[in-house]
Amino acid sequence: MTKVLSMLLLSAVLFISFGEWDNYSPEKIIGMEKAALDRWGKGDPGGYLDIMDTDITYFDPFQERRLDGLTAMKEFLKPLTGKIKVDRFDMLNPKVQRDGNMALLTFNLLSYVKQSDGTEKLAARWNSSEVYRKSGAQWKIIHSHWSLIKPTLAAGAEKTPAESR
Amino acid sequence: MTKVLSMLLLSAVLFISFGEWDNYSPEKIIGMEKAALDRWGKGDPGGYLDIMDTDITYFDPFQERRLDGLTAMKEFLKPLTGKIKVDRFDMLNPKVQRDGNMALLTFNLLSYVKQSDGTEKLAARWNSSEVYRKSGAQWKIIHSHWSLIKPTLAAGAEKTPAESR
Repeated sequence: MTKVLSMLLLSAVLFISFGEWDNYSPEKIIGMEKAALDRWGKGDPGGYLDIMDTDITYFDPFQERRLDGLTAMKEFLKPLTGKIKVDRFDMLNPKVQRDGNMALLTFNLLSYVKQSDGTEKLAARWNSSEVYRKSGAQWKIIHSHWSLIKPTLAAGAEKTPAESR
Repeated sequence: MTKVLSMLLLSAVLFISFGEWDNYSPEKIIGMEKAALDRWGKGDPGGYLDIMDTDITYFDPFQERRLDGLTAMKEFLKPLTGKIKVDRFDMLNPKVQRDGNMALLTFNLLSYVKQSDGTEKLAARWNSSEVYRKSGAQWKIIHSHWSLIKPTLAAGAEKTPAESR
């Protein structure tokens, strides 16, 4: 009985040590993203800027082309400080696909704002891909792709997959 | 002199061998994507299906949520066979960010179709993120995210980064 308990304890210690050394779990990556999102919702893009690596590449629906590099991201995001307000996020079905030092997090995101009458309004629905890479002990974002779920297109601008890409 | 030549030759052999063993170059990943795109433009989604791995995750502007898994992708893409026609692609500024067995390819894509009067029309402008992973000797796509550059939104549906995510 003591032997079994010792083995269990040893396994637990080894498991925890390996986890610490590896510095990875899907929950860790998801937690990093949620922490950055929480700061974003309060008007602080620094939560993202702090965990973006120097070679970050970035897409969102408002850019003419991909943004490259942390300097470009700072120029883009810092002016948004204090201008963002999201009261609640719903991160749907987050999934991490990881191999070695790279981990891809994908999820759909619903963001809600409180209106003056106190009710909540769905502000936007997102597709999100975030690529994290471990450099040293630290996971950092090297790519972000944000796009709108089924954007309501103006008349004449509708597309289907078949006629487009 | 012979010694220098021998060293150069040895270096070249080692370099080529390492390249073969490693089975990676940015050009290889970009070439795979272009080959799949060429088949896509001719109405054949099989170019993508052939290089998607079983755990593929997928976003495009027409889905309610992320598609997961190769079976879902086959159900989605196979019915498009013969319905897609793109005459020319312009892949802008492709970039590969790679660590170990994962390689992220990002680019903007302009797709053109020929009109009945023979002139070319810009059909769509895309942001694209493709995550490749090496399993065995083969690189396969484990994630695709396609979104429209600055989709022309219907009145009332406009968003800015600050009010949305």
